[in-house]
Amino acid sequence: MTTIGFVGLGVMGSPMAANLVAAGHAVTGYDVSAERLDRLADAGGKAAGDVAGAVAGADVVITMLPDSPQVEEVAAEILRHAGPGLLYLDMSTISPSTSRRVAEQAAARGVRALDAPVSGGERGAVDGTLSIMVGGAGGDFEAALPVLRALGTTIVHVGPPGAGQTVKAANQLVVGGIYGLVAEAIVLLEGSGVDPVAGLDVLAGGLAGSRVLDLKRHSMIRREFAPGFRIDLHHKDMGIAVAAAREAGVALPLTGQVAQLVAAARAQGHGSLDHSALLKVIERLNG
Amino acid sequence: MTTIGFVGLGVMGSPMAANLVAAGHAVTGYDVSAERLDRLADAGGKAAGDVAGAVAGADVVITMLPDSPQVEEVAAEILRHAGPGLLYLDMSTISPSTSRRVAEQAAARGVRALDAPVSGGERGAVDGTLSIMVGGAGGDFEAALPVLRALGTTIVHVGPPGAGQTVKAANQLVVGGIYGLVAEAIVLLEGSGVDPVAGLDVLAGGLAGSRVLDLKRHSMIRREFAPGFRIDLHHKDMGIAVAAAREAGVALPLTGQVAQLVAAARAQGHGSLDHSALLKVIERLNG
Amino acid sequence: MTTIGFVGLGVMGSPMAANLVAAGHAVTGYDVSAERLDRLADAGGKAAGDVAGAVAGADVVITMLPDSPQVEEVAAEILRHAGPGLLYLDMSTISPSTSRRVAEQAAARGVRALDAPVSGGERGAVDGTLSIMVGGAGGDFEAALPVLRALGTTIVHVGPPGAGQTVKAANQLVVGGIYGLVAEAIVLLEGSGVDPVAGLDVLAGGLAGSRVLDLKRHSMIRREFAPGFRIDLHHKDMGIAVAAAREAGVALPLTGQVAQLVAAARAQGHGSLDHSALLKVIERLNG
Amino acid sequence: MTTIGFVGLGVMGSPMAANLVAAGHAVTGYDVSAERLDRLADAGGKAAGDVAGAVAGADVVITMLPDSPQVEEVAAEILRHAGPGLLYLDMSTISPSTSRRVAEQAAARGVRALDAPVSGGERGAVDGTLSIMVGGAGGDFEAALPVLRALGTTIVHVGPPGAGQTVKAANQLVVGGIYGLVAEAIVLLEGSGVDPVAGLDVLAGGLAGSRVLDLKRHSMIRREFAPGFRIDLHHKDMGIAVAAAREAGVALPLTGQVAQLVAAARAQGHGSLDHSALLKVIERLNG
Repeated sequence: MTTIGFVGLGVMGSPMAANLVAAGHAVTGYDVSAERLDRLADAGGKAAGDVAGAVAGADVVITMLPDSPQVEEVAAEILRHAGPGLLYLDMSTISPSTSRRVAEQAAARGVRALDAPVSGGERGAVDGTLSIMVGGAGGDFEAALPVLRALGTTIVHVGPPGAGQTVKAANQLVVGGIYGLVAEAIVLLEGSGVDPVAGLDVLAGGLAGSRVLDLKRHSMIRREFAPGFRIDLHHKDMGIAVAAAREAGVALPLTGQVAQLVAAARAQGHGSLDHSALLKVIERLNG
Repeated sequence: MTTIGFVGLGVMGSPMAANLVAAGHAVTGYDVSAERLDRLADAGGKAAGDVAGAVAGADVVITMLPDSPQVEEVAAEILRHAGPGLLYLDMSTISPSTSRRVAEQAAARGVRALDAPVSGGERGAVDGTLSIMVGGAGGDFEAALPVLRALGTTIVHVGPPGAGQTVKAANQLVVGGIYGLVAEAIVLLEGSGVDPVAGLDVLAGGLAGSRVLDLKRHSMIRREFAPGFRIDLHHKDMGIAVAAAREAGVALPLTGQVAQLVAAARAQGHGSLDHSALLKVIERLNG
Repeated sequence: MTTIGFVGLGVMGSPMAANLVAAGHAVTGYDVSAERLDRLADAGGKAAGDVAGAVAGADVVITMLPDSPQVEEVAAEILRHAGPGLLYLDMSTISPSTSRRVAEQAAARGVRALDAPVSGGERGAVDGTLSIMVGGAGGDFEAALPVLRALGTTIVHVGPPGAGQTVKAANQLVVGGIYGLVAEAIVLLEGSGVDPVAGLDVLAGGLAGSRVLDLKRHSMIRREFAPGFRIDLHHKDMGIAVAAAREAGVALPLTGQVAQLVAAARAQGHGSLDHSALLKVIERLNG
Repeated sequence: MTTIGFVGLGVMGSPMAANLVAAGHAVTGYDVSAERLDRLADAGGKAAGDVAGAVAGADVVITMLPDSPQVEEVAAEILRHAGPGLLYLDMSTISPSTSRRVAEQAAARGVRALDAPVSGGERGAVDGTLSIMVGGAGGDFEAALPVLRALGTTIVHVGPPGAGQTVKAANQLVVGGIYGLVAEAIVLLEGSGVDPVAGLDVLAGGLAGSRVLDLKRHSMIRREFAPGFRIDLHHKDMGIAVAAAREAGVALPLTGQVAQLVAAARAQGHGSLDHSALLKVIERLNG
């Protein structure tokens, strides 16, 4: 059993905290929303009144927050109240450079920090089947494993601080790009009078096959775009991917293009739809 | 047993014809290369002296040729010598519009034509495990099935004449695009100091997963680009995809971009490498 | 005075033929439309009953036709009826490879062929102020100059057969791209609450300045898209540019992208609007 | 005569400050480099020991700094020491959102702030012929005009706070894009065996004409890339353009693409070359 502080009890954080409780850990959570705190208490955790209260007495602190500014603010607060030896896991999806900066600040305070963003969505958070990509020191990764095992099934140490975020960015650029390609395939098939169901069945069975085709081709063809993972979030993630490329000093032409298509989805008012709604952008381009 | 004429005994056509023989069909082949004709004879087929010789007495004629001009030329020759009721399967990868034109000319002569391009490469041709996407009349598709079953495992009727080619074009634009995306992911990971093996392992296990990642991520990271499917051929296929979109009157922004990246691979002298060598284009863009 | 046959009396060809008459040349024209032939007669030319009639007795034959197939067909007819030494100027905008093929066929018949596409639009055709970019032998260019001077003000010999078409393709990719860039500038300014008139005035006065900004920024901001030069024609020209790059074995990423945006304008039903209507594509992408 | 504080005496700021002195204004400058301060003194200005010293007694304070972080830091210092009614002109090129934030902070302290980025480069700074695009209140713009007239010839009020930066971003995306298009035109012409000098001469004289073609086509064809305006700076500016589009909630596909091509120029080690070196990126893509 580990004593865990958990800050950020939203769509993802709430079921993650519940899974930690279910795994036998002592979880004290904090969130700006009282309702979310009640939910944690219902699940068997404890509610703190502020970040400091979640950090007090914790061996491990986890944050699951919307974006870089929130992480920077909460991390500063955590470090202010942390005892030496604390293990701090930020599981938010933010820019690699922010994760590196947080790791440096943590090191200066004797805190062991890991960036550990996830993929798998709300479903994976509830089921405890997330993929977790972890950046930081190898020893710290080992120390975090018993806790992370309550949250995910694929848990990989991918490199130094920030590396988890870089892998997440790479993941999102590939996923966004595949949605765009499948969308173009559908528009080409339909525009040529070809049955897209039969067509994509063939694609799914060959070298063009992908998880996206497996899971989403039928809903895309039926134009069902209930999330799933929202365009708004993928837009945030493409921003991180473009910025990460810039920081790494690399040019990624398809990524730059995909980022604009996702931005278009949002500009067209589809921010709350599933990211497969990239199809609507390619369609609108065509009339 | 069906009497089959087979024109075009190259890398793909030769093992396909051999599989037809092995399945008990009587195959008479023609190719401009005497050596290839000898190989067919060794496999148990008969060598014809010209296209007319391959057509004579055949119930089914199959062509497997490099590109549209060759198909147009050979198809004209076939139609000149065809008896009514002949079933003509063009299994080349060519533009949908050429397939539609050939189908019209065939219909005018009482010949039943199908476009039936394949994916699966030389391996699939040898093993008889090709994916075959078929355009044409449903009844003609049914009639062709006994023959096609000797060549492939996934055999799908996708629509009217040309539809097989359109699906093939859609397949190739998705495959080319995924190679480009995976290449950008590798360049981002390596450029950020992240181990690409660990990083792509995570991607392969989640929503970013694809057949390309499954089969090619390790060889790409090791920069092993022995074909496989050559850049030169994928360049031809992207040309077909862009032209097919144009004919269908649809705009496909990612496809247009991928076509230029594949063209760059060729311009850089990588035409004989595997299409995963798109990675070399993204790398060269970065120094 | 030169005896000139002129085939293709459309929006461009009709005023061009009239200018040749006005310059004192003897012009015999042919077109499939009787009305257009009447117009030539009104202008002082003679109407022929077919291509052969326009070629008969001519020192120079000019064609001004919609696209490659028409040029190939009419050029074959011209060569069939040409006497040796005929100077044949194709002023249509077609692919460089077609122009090269026509030049070879002409040479085989002792006919001197030049490709001489123009820019400047209907206005330039009427006023005799076209820009003419000429490919072919230098001596043939010199021989054609007295005739071309009746049609344009900028007349440049740019290289061997096909070179005129390549320069025209380069011209059109740059023009299309600048329209796209100006469209994005307008969308950025308006989307940021900045007055686009004041903003583009600054751009027009500095390094971002261009003929497009000089002539079209006010009409674009007012969303006035009466042609001018139609999207349909620019779509044709972008197809030529993409094909010309392919034939030259070069990858042009922005050109590939611009071609898709122009294709989108057409897919959205703006084929009859001015090419500055590329702005509608960028706008639609944004809602 | 106005009493002016000037912070940031680099390649641009130094000649600008000298021009203000020459126009009869009393200029007190500050820079971290002592050598630059000496140069200002030589030109007839006064050297301050810190930002506060440059602000003391000034009616107008101007900053000319590398990027947003420096502006945020120096602006905070200026506002700390500013008397009410001070007119603060930031002439740096930074993100519109930073300019808006600075304007809000200034307003809270009774300081009148304008964003007034420039184009025209070192040449324009020395000659006092800059283009200046100004965002902020109309009255403040009027108040700043007498000072700005010593620095530039085109001085335009384009909208509210941040609008100057948005126009600068629009300017840079158009300039970068035109360089890319001209580079592709050169690669197409040369790759097709067409003389690029003759070809670009035609383009420069027609609808494809632009300031970039007028000023840079000959040096580009000769591959002379001495700056001029460096790729590193244009890379910074494309980052601002992409971010400005993101903040405005608009998708700009060509801009996203151009940003990646400029990033590639930098990744290839051409950061210190003129931005026309985008040609090297298109060339390298082709072998």
